[in-house]
Amino acid sequence: MRVDLNADMGEGFGDWTMGDDAALLEVVTSANVACGAHAGDWDVMARTMRLAAACGVGIGAHPGFADLQGFGRRRIPMAPDTVANLVAWQFGAARAIAATVGAGVRHFKLHGALANMASEDAELARAAYGAALKVDPDVILLCLAGTAQEVAARDLGAAWAGEIFADRGYNDDATLVTRGQPGAMIHDPEAAATRMVRFVQAGAIIANSGREIRAACDSICLHGDGPEAVAIARAVRAALEAEGVTLAPMAGRRG
Amino acid sequence: MRVDLNADMGEGFGDWTMGDDAALLEVVTSANVACGAHAGDWDVMARTMRLAAACGVGIGAHPGFADLQGFGRRRIPMAPDTVANLVAWQFGAARAIAATVGAGVRHFKLHGALANMASEDAELARAAYGAALKVDPDVILLCLAGTAQEVAARDLGAAWAGEIFADRGYNDDATLVTRGQPGAMIHDPEAAATRMVRFVQAGAIIANSGREIRAACDSICLHGDGPEAVAIARAVRAALEAEGVTLAPMAGRRG
Amino acid sequence: MRVDLNADMGEGFGDWTMGDDAALLEVVTSANVACGAHAGDWDVMARTMRLAAACGVGIGAHPGFADLQGFGRRRIPMAPDTVANLVAWQFGAARAIAATVGAGVRHFKLHGALANMASEDAELARAAYGAALKVDPDVILLCLAGTAQEVAARDLGAAWAGEIFADRGYNDDATLVTRGQPGAMIHDPEAAATRMVRFVQAGAIIANSGREIRAACDSICLHGDGPEAVAIARAVRAALEAEGVTLAPMAGRRG
Amino acid sequence: MRVDLNADMGEGFGDWTMGDDAALLEVVTSANVACGAHAGDWDVMARTMRLAAACGVGIGAHPGFADLQGFGRRRIPMAPDTVANLVAWQFGAARAIAATVGAGVRHFKLHGALANMASEDAELARAAYGAALKVDPDVILLCLAGTAQEVAARDLGAAWAGEIFADRGYNDDATLVTRGQPGAMIHDPEAAATRMVRFVQAGAIIANSGREIRAACDSICLHGDGPEAVAIARAVRAALEAEGVTLAPMAGRRG
Repeated sequence: MRVDLNADMGEGFGDWTMGDDAALLEVVTSANVACGAHAGDWDVMARTMRLAAACGVGIGAHPGFADLQGFGRRRIPMAPDTVANLVAWQFGAARAIAATVGAGVRHFKLHGALANMASEDAELARAAYGAALKVDPDVILLCLAGTAQEVAARDLGAAWAGEIFADRGYNDDATLVTRGQPGAMIHDPEAAATRMVRFVQAGAIIANSGREIRAACDSICLHGDGPEAVAIARAVRAALEAEGVTLAPMAGRRG
Repeated sequence: MRVDLNADMGEGFGDWTMGDDAALLEVVTSANVACGAHAGDWDVMARTMRLAAACGVGIGAHPGFADLQGFGRRRIPMAPDTVANLVAWQFGAARAIAATVGAGVRHFKLHGALANMASEDAELARAAYGAALKVDPDVILLCLAGTAQEVAARDLGAAWAGEIFADRGYNDDATLVTRGQPGAMIHDPEAAATRMVRFVQAGAIIANSGREIRAACDSICLHGDGPEAVAIARAVRAALEAEGVTLAPMAGRRG
Repeated sequence: MRVDLNADMGEGFGDWTMGDDAALLEVVTSANVACGAHAGDWDVMARTMRLAAACGVGIGAHPGFADLQGFGRRRIPMAPDTVANLVAWQFGAARAIAATVGAGVRHFKLHGALANMASEDAELARAAYGAALKVDPDVILLCLAGTAQEVAARDLGAAWAGEIFADRGYNDDATLVTRGQPGAMIHDPEAAATRMVRFVQAGAIIANSGREIRAACDSICLHGDGPEAVAIARAVRAALEAEGVTLAPMAGRRG
Repeated sequence: MRVDLNADMGEGFGDWTMGDDAALLEVVTSANVACGAHAGDWDVMARTMRLAAACGVGIGAHPGFADLQGFGRRRIPMAPDTVANLVAWQFGAARAIAATVGAGVRHFKLHGALANMASEDAELARAAYGAALKVDPDVILLCLAGTAQEVAARDLGAAWAGEIFADRGYNDDATLVTRGQPGAMIHDPEAAATRMVRFVQAGAIIANSGREIRAACDSICLHGDGPEAVAIARAVRAALEAEGVTLAPMAGRRG
């Protein structure tokens, strides 16, 4: 039994910093590195990737909307072709920075509003993923398990990995409980850790109702900001290790 | 005898256009495509590269300072490491967009103020070129012949090509006559064409004084803006063809 | 009988130009000047306002989303408070540039997607207009006649002027015929001119069906881009002058 | 005897924060608010100004180069006319945001590289200050005491205030000791506090050599970032209060 732990990183810009990348890199096995559009710049990217590589953490490109002020969290309507170009551009930039630090980019994960839109719209997801695959046919697409992202990755015959959240509750249809509703957020590190062990062992998302939905639980998304985030990350890792689950950068599945 | 004709392209941004790329693509053999920092965006890049590939024109990445408002023409002081990251980031973005249109990036040419700074400062040029070579060891570095750019490319053992200007006069030390001084600009298409034939046949820059300075006259820089620019470009091409010079995308030289 | 002719201007950025401001300034009586967010920069704004002032044309601030690449035409979801700050910021910038050229800003018109959103959402319009009025209580709000923009301006007790389009067809509810549908665009200069005379004389929008909807026909929006745009602008002006309609910068109405 | 304590604020951008504005606002009497070019955005500006006004702290516009990634610390060569437009644009934006929170902008201070350039080049300083005065003839120009900034403010007959640094050593010609050289930085809060009391009481900059240079010691620049910065700020304030010096927002002097 094996799982990957991923987190967003390299989210500074210029003199601004965000999150505690060094702490997270001791916990995760994959890093989603911002590409300079919603966060990150060439220098931040190089520093982050160098650090990730030194920690043996898998590097991923994490493209988002070119909206620094909104941190890529605002939905900007955009034709699929433009989304394709937008993410290819960022993916290529990430690959080049990785090359300058002697590393490579193993995976590709959409950020923020763009990720949300692609999880609801398989055409948009296919445009984004199709562009990424033209840049690197072997890249692993990290997809929100059970969403249109996964549908698109399967359609394209790509290597992909399914992603689940350590700190979010699920509805019976495998969608996330909307923020602000009861059960949306898991704040307790031990609760989050126990859940993740159950998800991974069951190979299923377990909804707040108790219902199990078979899902590709390949990679657990952790966060680095907020007081409890790093505590949750560490608890999840410790619980998985205690159960003998191997922690390693994601391997792509196909089909 | 063989020479390349290059021109900057893809210099629009969003709804703004610049230059007549379609007209230039009928004349040149290499296109320097802006990478989204000083000009160009992901969509402009894709359109430009698709068109260049369809015309059989060699594609180059043309990185500059991230200064849209200044079009990359203002000197921004920057540490060599940051310049390295800046140009790697753009080069990678260009390679990825090229991949999405089924093309490749053959060469790399610095833009504007960054090019000027690198032509005077071999350390800066080495930083930029070194980063580009980590991204693609086979890329051809298009260097201003006889400047610190050429020195850096030779130092790095890279494939490089020397660039000369069709519409600029030269001093006895192979530097350009400063704009505004007599002889700085060549406005007459026939004069430009005759000069370029002489440069290529002599394998030398011929200064305004008549002095010949041996130089790698591998690629002639043409322009697309201004009333006489396209006329000069066509005249240069016609004169070279009339002399039996082969026009083809640059081949890199080493050492 | 009196009407204003307005057009968007100052839509260049850095080295990029757009439209023929000099030609339009001979026709219009009010200029909507981009404020550096979706188009325009401080230098373009200063040049445009200096020229407008020299032509005796009324100057307006024309704020939009901070989305250069999308030219402010993409709908970016944003809380009303943020929209208020966004447009105040641009309005203030415009007032300051006007001051440096010895002119003043008389009116305020929302641009692009932000204008469309405010024409459908009176709360958003009130947020934007309320902020503008805190900056200058006497500014004239140029509102799309019959939309939520007008509702908001009336609610706020502001000075406002109603805007109609020379080159667009109207539905029976005073909304514009959607682009791409029959009757959406008026291409013929004489047809546009005749319509505008009728609208102004009737004090009503005349739908494509012939139905008259009473409306504040205070200012006619003209365009400067496209081959027929300047011809339409000139034809509209000539027809109004032939009918003895006074052409002058908009005067605000209240209530 | 009276002096102002000023600090830079509102230096966040989007989701990024910088410095502890709330802590500083308990110490200072004037706040230099970034205007959205090198830092700050419309929302950050509004929050910062609202807070400053609530604390009774004088608000200043703090324009810099439009270089977010470089935080306005890189020298970008720019014609004086363009600098004039750049700072007017930011000053106007700041005035408008202040208006929306029911406050006003009392002073104007250049930021970073632009400030450094203006302290060496009176023509550049005159361009910037002249533009600010066209926007508001009564604004107080906060000038680095004894530099070309002061020369320009006097030339223009403007209201101005002289600024000294709490944490920097001075040479005998009133210039700052270059960072990295002995005596450049004052790290000890008590030392900084003692120095500032002496400067203010003497009406002079006291060089590290002990030499006194008569100077307008109207406003002391404090910092909010770094572990000792707030401690220095508090110590300076306490020492001045203990000596009976009145702390109040700067009043402009003329001539």
